[in-house]
Amino acid sequence: MDNTNIHLSEIAVRYAETDAMGFVYYGNYLTWFEVARCEALAAMGHPYAEMEKQNIFIPVLSAEIQYKKPAKFGDIIKIESLRYRLGRVRIQFNYRVLKGDELLTTGKTVHAFMNSAGRAIRPPEEILEFFPEQG
Amino acid sequence: MDNTNIHLSEIAVRYAETDAMGFVYYGNYLTWFEVARCEALAAMGHPYAEMEKQNIFIPVLSAEIQYKKPAKFGDIIKIESLRYRLGRVRIQFNYRVLKGDELLTTGKTVHAFMNSAGRAIRPPEEILEFFPEQG
Amino acid sequence: MDNTNIHLSEIAVRYAETDAMGFVYYGNYLTWFEVARCEALAAMGHPYAEMEKQNIFIPVLSAEIQYKKPAKFGDIIKIESLRYRLGRVRIQFNYRVLKGDELLTTGKTVHAFMNSAGRAIRPPEEILEFFPEQG
Amino acid sequence: MDNTNIHLSEIAVRYAETDAMGFVYYGNYLTWFEVARCEALAAMGHPYAEMEKQNIFIPVLSAEIQYKKPAKFGDIIKIESLRYRLGRVRIQFNYRVLKGDELLTTGKTVHAFMNSAGRAIRPPEEILEFFPEQG
Repeated sequence: MDNTNIHLSEIAVRYAETDAMGFVYYGNYLTWFEVARCEALAAMGHPYAEMEKQNIFIPVLSAEIQYKKPAKFGDIIKIESLRYRLGRVRIQFNYRVLKGDELLTTGKTVHAFMNSAGRAIRPPEEILEFFPEQG
Repeated sequence: MDNTNIHLSEIAVRYAETDAMGFVYYGNYLTWFEVARCEALAAMGHPYAEMEKQNIFIPVLSAEIQYKKPAKFGDIIKIESLRYRLGRVRIQFNYRVLKGDELLTTGKTVHAFMNSAGRAIRPPEEILEFFPEQG
Repeated sequence: MDNTNIHLSEIAVRYAETDAMGFVYYGNYLTWFEVARCEALAAMGHPYAEMEKQNIFIPVLSAEIQYKKPAKFGDIIKIESLRYRLGRVRIQFNYRVLKGDELLTTGKTVHAFMNSAGRAIRPPEEILEFFPEQG
Repeated sequence: MDNTNIHLSEIAVRYAETDAMGFVYYGNYLTWFEVARCEALAAMGHPYAEMEKQNIFIPVLSAEIQYKKPAKFGDIIKIESLRYRLGRVRIQFNYRVLKGDELLTTGKTVHAFMNSAGRAIRPPEEILEFFPEQG
């Protein structure tokens, strides 16, 4: 169980994720953010695959990324995710992508909750409790 | 309408498709084969998105690729797809990836037909007629 | 030649770009933005593959996306890109992803210019002239 | 160190790797094969990122995949890779993708060795020793 609002993920850069500039392609950070989110939800005891079976989906409303330094094949990357609630129906993740102590990338995603019919729903209390208000 | 069993697709290499070796990542040829297949089905008058709405899915049973020469960002690629039936329930596509007259890659995919429940079905006659037996 | 600061690209959604929710995966919009940028540069007479050969690289400094409505397999998507200069050394693209008249997604990327050694350079005047100041 | 010619990798399916059929996209198995190969090389004491720095590249000559059962988001996948030498200059990996005891996919890739100039080279003895002849 992960009772704080922080989670740490580790990823080994895949060759598939690099591009001809020799670094990780800029779009693949959103995949890494997804991995970090899903690991955070699993650590809370609510794996996203289980949530989908219970008809709870968490689509992305917006995303942003700031690219400071590149990652490359062979790097072991750490992704620190912080999470917050935004009012009663939205949640937010802030990400920091690190190589050792070096900050490579920062980012943010905002999410709503919906059912399989695509209708907005309130996030279940047992999930929302892991998302504190932003201080 | 495309009454022969050949179809020609054209693709501009995307930066996202390259890797740190400076060429197109080896897995992305399967995406190009999918694009070629879907364009071929659309040219037959049976766009795959429409087939899925009619509860007809065409999963891949096997795939193979031979890499002869690399493709790189900036290249305009032609994909020639030939199609055949394999007995009554399977189809096959053969692919040739070309840059001008230069043959870069060859490949093959074999497919079955199934419904949304995942059960094998017979391919509809109006589709199978575009797939001649292999000579 | 494209003398205004707007360019329009068209993309057919690939099956590879969808995810298990049935829609285009949120990270793939950054690939589409890249396609739109590269087509815009080519329309200006400066294909990006040529610029790289002249030792000019245009890395991404930041990206953001707002997801309004989903795209799905079978959709034909239009991407409208607007471009601006930011001072003397940075450029910006604003994107609008449309399905017919329906606005699906908006986004923005900011870029610097660098040489192959990774050092910041001034953008060439013949490129910068296609990027007006933001009004 | 991994002195046998078998290596076992574990992968958690990413949402990004699924497609609208609800399963892992068929092209992404080649990415998983790459992850399995790189982990096997690292276990031999020869991480591929280090080999590239020493001017040794291992391009793919051919690949094949047999799709038996689908993988889906939430699955933890095991990839068993076996390796062999093919004469003096080529190597081969055979892959088995497993979910628990269930065999989902099999595959094979054949590779040559080249330097950064793209010229074929002999594989170094200290690497080839990890690749027995196929029995």
